This record gives sequence, C-alpha cells and structure tokens, in this order.
Amino acid sequence: MAGERLVYLPLGGAGEVGMNMYLYGYGKPNKERFILVDMGVTFPDMDGTPGVDLIFPDIEWIAARADRLDAIFITHAHEDHVGAVGHLYDRLRAPIYARKFTSHIARLKMEEHGYSGEEIEVVGPMPHQVQVGAFKVGLMPISHSIPESSALVIDTPEGRVVHSGDFKIDETPGLGEPFDREAFGSLGPVKALICDSTNVFSRHEGRSESTVGPNIVPIVREAEGLVVATTFASNIARVRTLAQAGVDAGRSVVLLGRSMQKMVRAGLETGVVTDFPPYLAPEEAGDIPRQNLMILATGSQGERRAATAQLSRGKFLGFSLKEGDTVIFSSKTIPGNETSVGQIVNNFSEMGVDVIDDKMADIHVSGHANRPDLEEMHRLVKPQILVPNHGEHRMLREHATIGEAGGIASVVAPNGTMVSLSGNRPEVVEFIETGRLYLDGAVQIGALDGIVRDRIRMALNGQVVVGVLIDEDDEALEPWVELRGLAEMGRSKAPLADVLEEELGQFLGRANGATISDDDKLEEQLRRIVRNTSQSEIGKKPEVVVLISRLTA
Amino acid sequence: MAGERLVYLPLGGAGEVGMNMYLYGYGKPNKERFILVDMGVTFPDMDGTPGVDLIFPDIEWIAARADRLDAIFITHAHEDHVGAVGHLYDRLRAPIYARKFTSHIARLKMEEHGYSGEEIEVVGPMPHQVQVGAFKVGLMPISHSIPESSALVIDTPEGRVVHSGDFKIDETPGLGEPFDREAFGSLGPVKALICDSTNVFSRHEGRSESTVGPNIVPIVREAEGLVVATTFASNIARVRTLAQAGVDAGRSVVLLGRSMQKMVRAGLETGVVTDFPPYLAPEEAGDIPRQNLMILATGSQGERRAATAQLSRGKFLGFSLKEGDTVIFSSKTIPGNETSVGQIVNNFSEMGVDVIDDKMADIHVSGHANRPDLEEMHRLVKPQILVPNHGEHRMLREHATIGEAGGIASVVAPNGTMVSLSGNRPEVVEFIETGRLYLDGAVQIGALDGIVRDRIRMALNGQVVVGVLIDEDDEALEPWVELRGLAEMGRSKAPLADVLEEELGQFLGRANGATISDDDKLEEQLRRIVRNTSQSEIGKKPEVVVLISRLTA
Repeated sequence: MAGERLVYLPLGGAGEVGMNMYLYGYGKPNKERFILVDMGVTFPDMDGTPGVDLIFPDIEWIAARADRLDAIFITHAHEDHVGAVGHLYDRLRAPIYARKFTSHIARLKMEEHGYSGEEIEVVGPMPHQVQVGAFKVGLMPISHSIPESSALVIDTPEGRVVHSGDFKIDETPGLGEPFDREAFGSLGPVKALICDSTNVFSRHEGRSESTVGPNIVPIVREAEGLVVATTFASNIARVRTLAQAGVDAGRSVVLLGRSMQKMVRAGLETGVVTDFPPYLAPEEAGDIPRQNLMILATGSQGERRAATAQLSRGKFLGFSLKEGDTVIFSSKTIPGNETSVGQIVNNFSEMGVDVIDDKMADIHVSGHANRPDLEEMHRLVKPQILVPNHGEHRMLREHATIGEAGGIASVVAPNGTMVSLSGNRPEVVEFIETGRLYLDGAVQIGALDGIVRDRIRMALNGQVVVGVLIDEDDEALEPWVELRGLAEMGRSKAPLADVLEEELGQFLGRANGATISDDDKLEEQLRRIVRNTSQSEIGKKPEVVVLISRLTA
Repeated sequence: MAGERLVYLPLGGAGEVGMNMYLYGYGKPNKERFILVDMGVTFPDMDGTPGVDLIFPDIEWIAARADRLDAIFITHAHEDHVGAVGHLYDRLRAPIYARKFTSHIARLKMEEHGYSGEEIEVVGPMPHQVQVGAFKVGLMPISHSIPESSALVIDTPEGRVVHSGDFKIDETPGLGEPFDREAFGSLGPVKALICDSTNVFSRHEGRSESTVGPNIVPIVREAEGLVVATTFASNIARVRTLAQAGVDAGRSVVLLGRSMQKMVRAGLETGVVTDFPPYLAPEEAGDIPRQNLMILATGSQGERRAATAQLSRGKFLGFSLKEGDTVIFSSKTIPGNETSVGQIVNNFSEMGVDVIDDKMADIHVSGHANRPDLEEMHRLVKPQILVPNHGEHRMLREHATIGEAGGIASVVAPNGTMVSLSGNRPEVVEFIETGRLYLDGAVQIGALDGIVRDRIRMALNGQVVVGVLIDEDDEALEPWVELRGLAEMGRSKAPLADVLEEELGQFLGRANGATISDDDKLEEQLRRIVRNTSQSEIGKKPEVVVLISRLTA
C-alpha cells in the first residue's frame, strides 16, 4: 500500500555472534508495527566485562515503542536466542510464540523471573502460520545443533521474507527434523532472505551430525577406565549419541551437570527425543565400577563451575578421575574460551587422564552452514534480497559479497541499521542507537555507564585509598593510606604506604588555606601526589579514592 | 665418575609454551655445577594477570646457587628465550654465550637495564664448543622462525646431550641455516635429547617457509589500494618475503613499528640477512601514492599499541586505511589472542578493508616441528633418553608417548622436576619449588603474593570504601561510603551509597563500646554489613576498605 514499507532492524547478532534480536516492521515510517525475532544473550569475559554475569542487547528503542510490538518469536532454544527472555520481557510484554520444546525452555526461564509462563503460546510448525498484524509467521523446521530449530517464513504485504535462524544443511541430524531441500526450494518467490553468517569463512563441505557417532563408538569401546564425555547440553542429538556409545560399550550412563539433566528431560517431556538410552543420576552411580561407567558432563567450553572443570580440579559429586581415565571433548572450543579449556585439559594431563578432542578425531561437527551450504541456501530460496545476520561484521560482509556474486541484491546491516526491504534492492533508511546491557549481579547496567570501566581500571592499576582529617581550624592531621593490589615496596626500599603518607603529609603541611578548605581542589592535589609518587616508586599510577573528613566546632 | 650425576631441571617452559629456562648440572648431588639454557618471558592476560607487564620463571632456586652457575646460553632471539635476560641477570651474573645475531638482540636488552653488554660473549656455531666446567657446549644451527636459531650440543662426562631449542625441519627456510639432516644424523651416540613439543598434536607434514612467498605475491599484486602486511617482526625471513612481494608488485615498502625496524636492522648489522629489499621509514613515505605503497606493520597478535591495532583504530603516523585497502595477516593467532585480533579484523571490515589471513590462503607456516618432524628428529638423533620440553603438560605427555613408542626411554618433566640423565632410563631425583614472577610496573612481585589476586577481586566485585570517625567519647559519627565499579541503585530504588550509610549508621548507633573501641572487630562488622547489604541490594558482594579515624582529646 502507498507509503507503507517493510523494514528489518537488528538490535543484536549483526556485528557479533550472540545476543540475537531482530525486528521486522511494516507500516508507514514511524508508524510501523513490529515483530521481534529471538531474545538472546552473550557472555562476558575478563577482558572487557569482568564481574558481569550476562550481556543483552540494549532494547531501549523497541521498549520505547512497545505499544507497536505485536509479537515475539523464538527460533530455537539456544541461549543466544532465548536467554534474555526472562530478563527483558517486562519492558516489551508482547505475546511470545515458539514451538513446543523451545517454549518449554523459554517457560522455564520466564518462571525463574516470576512469570507464569502463560506469556508463551506454543505453535506448531509450517504450514501453520500465526497472523500478527500485517504479518503471517510460520516456524519452518530446519536442521541445527539443537532439536526443533526453526526458520521463520514471514508473509508480508510486500512479499515473503525467510529468516533462516541458525541452520546447517543436514539430512541426517540424528534428532530434530532433517533439512528439507524440497520444502525450502518451494518457498518462492521470496523477497528477502535474512541468513546466518557464522561459518561463511569455512570453505569445506559441512559434515552431518550422523558422522560423529561412528567415530565416538570405538573411542569409548577401547577406553579402559572411567570415561567422561562433554558437549553442549543443548545438543541433545550429540548427548544421545554419546550415551548410546556408552551403553553399546557396556557402560552405565550418568548425566552430570544441571543443564545436561534439564535439556534431556525437556527433550523427553516435549517428545523431541523419544529413545534416549537409560541413564542414572549421579547419586545412583556410586556402586558401579569405574570401567562400567560413562559420565556425560557439562562444561565443554571450560565454564568454571560446570562439571568438566570441577572434575579437572578434583572430586565432584562423588566422582574423581585418575590415570588411565579418558575425557572426550565432543565439541569445538569457541574463540575466547581457549585459556579455560586449555587449563582443564592440562589438569587432566597432569592426572594421567587421556583427553581426546576434535583435533585428534572427527568427533564434532558444526551446527552452522559452511560457505557451500550458504550458497546452496541462496540457490534454493532464490531471494531477491539477501541480508546476512548472525555474525561479526567481517562475516556479514563476506556473506554479502557471496550474495552479490550470485546475483542477489545484498546489504551489510550491522546492529542499528534499519533496512527497507520494499524495493528491488535493500535500502538503508535509518540508523538507530543500539548498545549493550550488562546483568551485573542483580542489576542491569548500561555498557557505557562506566561501572565496568572503573572495575577494569582497578584491575590494571590497583588502588590507593587516602584518608584525611581536617580539624576545626582547617589544619590537616596526618593523612593515612590503604593500598589494594599494589606492590608493598618500591624503588626507595621503604613501604609504599609510608612513602605516600610522607609525601601527602608534607603537602598538607605546606598547603595554603584556599586549597585545604576546598574539597575538590584538595582531592585533586592529593590524587596527583599519590599517582606521581606511585609512578616513581613502583612504576604504576593507581586509582585513587580520597576521603576527606572535616571536623566542625 | 663415581657419585657424580648429570641432571636436567626445567624452571620454565615445561608446562607452558613460553618463559623458557632450563638447567643442566653435573656433579655430586647438591654440588652440581650448572649451565642455564635460555632466559625467556611469557605474556600476561586479563584473565589471570591484569595490569602485569611481563612474566618470568621464579629463579630463586638457581639464584640461591648462583655460585654454582657457570654460564648462560641463549638458543635464539625470541622473547620467550631471551626476554628475561635484562630483568634477571643481576641475580645470576654468569657469562652469557650466544651467536652473533642473538647476542645483538640480547645486548640491546641488557643495555636497557644499564648493563654494558660485555656480559655477553659472541660464539660461533658448531663445531666450535665452549668449555664450561664439565660441559662442552656447541651451538648447532637449526631451522626455526627466526634467523640463527640453534640447538645445543652439550658434551658431558656422561655422554652427549642434544637440546633442540625451538625447531622445525625446513631445508629451505629462506633466511637462516637450513636443517641439516646429515649433521643431526651424525651427532650420535646421543645420551639424551631434550626436545621442543609445541606442535606435537599437529599430524600433518610441516611446510617450508619457502612455500609462503608464492602465495603472498599474487595477493599483493592484485591489491588495488594500500596494502598492509603484518607478521612477527622477528621472522625476518617472512618480513623479507613480504617486502620482496611488495617491491615485485611495484610498491615502496615502509616498516611500521619499532620492533619491525629493530629486527631488520639487527639482521642487516649482524649479516644474517644480506639482501633485504630497500625500504623507507614512515616519515619518508608521505608523498607516495597509496596504490604504490606497502606497509609492513607490527602487531599480528593484536597487541594494542602495535601498528596494526593502531591502524584499525584510525590514523597512525600519517597513515590511514580506507575502503578498498588490504591487510594481510601472514601469521597465526596464538591461542589467547583471538579476541584482540578479532576486534582488529572487524574494525578493518567496518572500514571496507579486505583482510586476508591464513584461513583463506596458505600465507603462514609454523616455526615448530609437527609430529612427523619430531619422529624424524628422534630417528636422526637416536637418543637413549627423550625429555620433551617447550610445551604444555599435555604436549609433553604426548611427546613422551611417541618417544616410548619409538623405543626411547622418555619422561614427562614439568617445571621443577629434576631428572638424572645418567642411567639408561631418565630418573626423577628431586622436585624443587618453581613459580612465576610478575613484572608489575617497575617491581617484580611473586605470582602468589596476592597483589594481582586483589586486583582481580576488585575487577569482579567492585569496591566500597567506608569512612568512620570515632570521637573522644567513643561515639561514632555518621559513616560515609564511596563506591567504585558498582551499580548506583539497587532493589530498594534508593542510591546504594545511601542505603549502605543508613545501615552502617544504624549499626554504629546500636553497637556496644567493646566493638566500637576495637579496630579489628569494628572493621569486621562494618565489612560484613556492607557485603550483606550490597548482596541484597545489587546482588554483588564487593571488596571493602574501612578507614577508621579516632579523635583523641
């Protein structure tokens, strides 16, 4: 209709792998009505976010327009697609639609935040579609590394949009629906394909999930002691493969780790897995001989409190590893986690435990489409427009280059880039402010608030606290300092604290009344002296906190 | 001779890749005389060592026996073999032997610390050997990713020891000496081989340095805008290959970054490189058109202040990149550096700059021996004993397994493990305490001193400073707090600082005299209240500093 437009606006996931949140809107400019696809998180690290618990996209823009948000769709139950739902729902309050397993996981998260779970409506797969304003949205089964992953087929007045979600082309995924080439090939004509870019730089053919089992089985069979295998708990197909390999090798299977148990139970309850091998809870396995036991453990990414890391540090829930045991990492180490995983693997080595990972045997496959799969997806769907998402900027750019080379009008749209999909080519129509929110303890703080920056400064520079007492005659008494995270002794070979107190005391003795009586001036001078003296003594300029107490008559 | 023994004792580099320091000793137990091989550093990270500048092995054990240390040998000029020499020499003060290029680099480091450089003696390669006590030590050319790398051939009363240093088998290394199979095959009989384990898990054949150039040339030739290439400055062979590709493509070459210039100059001055293409300093290149320029930049590992990172953030020394330019990473990202390198690569992508790395083209080869090379080394040298070094525990263990499978008596000897090489099999005779020293600003601190641990705590938990004034009557005046790195507002929707001051004030009002008058008790209580109140308000338990001022009549 005249004046209306179809727009796409990523808030998270276009410029990073993680925290996926994508808006689609239809209507006249500034009057569009929206649907939101996915509400995901990404994870902190010591480099940029020490002490932070979770990271979400900053949803301010859509929260301020929540009256025009008609629905939220969740494509699958990975944390980077559903992890933010309980934390941010309050500011959006639109009905949530997902298929049954995904809804189960989403509901557990909502319940943790005090919601009833009724906010979520279970919908079945295509050809069923939900009518939401001008959109008709269907969840179309697609293969990925978690059961019941879905692409979205969004019918709009401007034509059909296919939002791939996370996917790979796998016709034998073990669990979950196989990729249906015919179904995807029949979707056309498709106006726009919004497509997963994660593995665009992987040039080799993707490998099916079903190739993993045959490589796992002999490893488990030949192992002599206790066997521990770790993978993503959400990859229930892989967990089942590992469990089956254990059973086939005559071992009882134990699920170790809360998320491992939760995921398998959720899969069984919702029926996405029906033939999971029998397994025991940790407390039931005490009497089983070690060589007849296989533990499926959480923590393939080196998470400090997960089962694998715990086992690498000693006893955990009654289990401990020793020489001759085997640990299988049926996973790939996500960039950023190498140090944590490396520490764990070397701990195991020091115990005499053999570690087998995907460099030594083909025991892991990716859940994302490699370049050949992406090119095939383009050919199947034949969109007029391609908008790469789910990737770092470099991945989006490479994916757009591939699209253009294949004759598809493509655009690089990082977070905050509003793209109109109405024309023959995608058109950037607006840039909106985006950012990140941190869950820091119990509070959501803005990434740019300065709170985490201050913590990073203390980590790098250490801290000096200065206490000063000014009496009723504006005379300063002896100052005193406390050091935190700083070397005790420096170049003078005298305690740094003493040197600082000496310098500060001399300054206060000489300072004129104007400086002493002015909190800000005084603080500034004291800070300067501390930093310069510390630089001279120990080669560091610490953070400084100055407490000035003034006595009144 | 009766009672004497030949021992090996790693202080650093056996249990990590980095900070190499290895002792060899001969004599009666507790009277051995030693030589030290290499004095290297490793690098900090935000995870475990925020704010730290460099990391060395703790040399206390050998420093306490420095009167029995006869010599220090440096195998090659990589930082993890020579970087600690200026920092730790003072406690050892034994003559340093190295070949000429390595000596040049070592001398520059010593001069930075106020030494004259006379502590270093330049020695020629095998067959020349230095007599040091019971040892005769020769530096034998071996191929690696820096010119003039050497293995050590150490003749002892118990037989010949070959210390591989860092190596690969490369007969066409471009610069530096090719691997001489015949020479290594003629070394026997060899009692013990102490051998680089870095790439033991790489199963494929190693590739020669000479394979890189042909893949670089077309990339540079086809580039249209400015070309930047980055690699390790110390890999002068690669730097020369890149420079030559630039010249062949009609571009002027600029070396950008201090270490790049230093290394090339050192190579030219010592004669290890004789035909380096002409190059310009940054300030001389201002008038050259961008498409006729190639910049060789430092910072292939994402180092924040190096040239590549600077260029990714904007203008640097007059150069800036833009759409259509090309950046070539002729390197591999060392585990731990992925986040830094990723940030840089994505910055370039946002500028429209094309990045080419070793995943997209074979433009980098490792400097370390892969598994097939290691097995060949074992076959050439035919040692009676194998002691893997230069690797994480897991690598040492795998390497020892390979040794045993090849009929060589092998041992896993992590840092601190003293091994006797006198018998037919290696025998662990003692464990000595080892650890790490941190260079923190200008001061060397022990890794376990708690200083860095306190900084990590502030990074994770934030900090509250509490000021309390107790008057002459032991009455507490209103307390006040300062927050650092903490959310301002918590569950009560009142400023956290106010809530804390309120709670503390109430406590002080109720507290009995015994508590008020006792500094330790009072501090403990105030700390407890701050942490519990903060946990309740913002879900974090901060670090707490309490300053108590007592007024006397």
